[in-house]
Amino acid sequence: MSKPLNDRRILIVATDGFEQSELKVPQQQLAELGATVHVASPKPGSIKGWDKKDWGDAVTVDLPLSEARVADYDALVLPGGQMNPDALRLEAAAITLIQDFAQAGKPVAAVCHAPWLLIDAGLVRGRRVTSWPSLRTDLSNAGGIVVDESVVEDDGVITSRKPEDLDDFVAKIAAALS
Amino acid sequence: MSKPLNDRRILIVATDGFEQSELKVPQQQLAELGATVHVASPKPGSIKGWDKKDWGDAVTVDLPLSEARVADYDALVLPGGQMNPDALRLEAAAITLIQDFAQAGKPVAAVCHAPWLLIDAGLVRGRRVTSWPSLRTDLSNAGGIVVDESVVEDDGVITSRKPEDLDDFVAKIAAALS
Repeated sequence: MSKPLNDRRILIVATDGFEQSELKVPQQQLAELGATVHVASPKPGSIKGWDKKDWGDAVTVDLPLSEARVADYDALVLPGGQMNPDALRLEAAAITLIQDFAQAGKPVAAVCHAPWLLIDAGLVRGRRVTSWPSLRTDLSNAGGIVVDESVVEDDGVITSRKPEDLDDFVAKIAAALS
Repeated sequence: MSKPLNDRRILIVATDGFEQSELKVPQQQLAELGATVHVASPKPGSIKGWDKKDWGDAVTVDLPLSEARVADYDALVLPGGQMNPDALRLEAAAITLIQDFAQAGKPVAAVCHAPWLLIDAGLVRGRRVTSWPSLRTDLSNAGGIVVDESVVEDDGVITSRKPEDLDDFVAKIAAALS
């Protein structure tokens, strides 16, 4: 059966403390659209979600971050959470991978606190971006043009604010791949 | 009995998710040096610490953040943790209070992830600062001169990197008040 994202391959990168809905909703919705979706992490086995105020569900890690290759995927999705992107900022392999997706002209999509990772990857300067409110000063200081919209796309970088924006976030990712 | 910080009053501002040692160690050590130490928070009652990998001890809140006045204290201490300063960045009363301490010439001390708050308070530009590694790009983008030292003081702003630096952090706060 033909679906909009048949033959599309999408990589999600996360670690412990990802905001649960911001991984699971894109993972599920993109798969329903026909895409193959893999989760890569520096942590093997499984990673623990954060469900609003406390630990939530574990999610299976499909491949180690160190083995994730841009050539194998069509887009990169970065879930938020306070802990997850803060930890990934210190993983050189994560930052390099984000840069590689951007250089290959493949969409990079970050929601909530994940746009912090775009700062370290050098993808913010001059772009229109959004995020969870707490890091907007950081995005602005990194040279971003910060807006308060449910989802923003600028030159291959898709950003969104919070769990309530996930339908718009996924729709924008899907549109970028259609 | 005469102690180095007799008659000194120190305010700690935090909310849920503060790194436990980064509140409790300064609270205890500064009290042992003779200071009166109060904890203010936007959350009434008590706040929950984060002990490295999971929730830790609760700490009693002595006064609401909205009632904290610079005139009542000699210094401000901001514990870290990934969640606590990220939440406080969105509390206008916290940012204003930090600015008020700095404008009154009273020491402002931030450890680990708490220097994010100094970014929003406009206290980073041109100062030598340190922090947990993940936010150093943000401090640099905010105009800070970022160094990797256990504790740094520059024009009334004291910053430190992590729990292991707490003895140096407290010693620097005490020295600034002696």
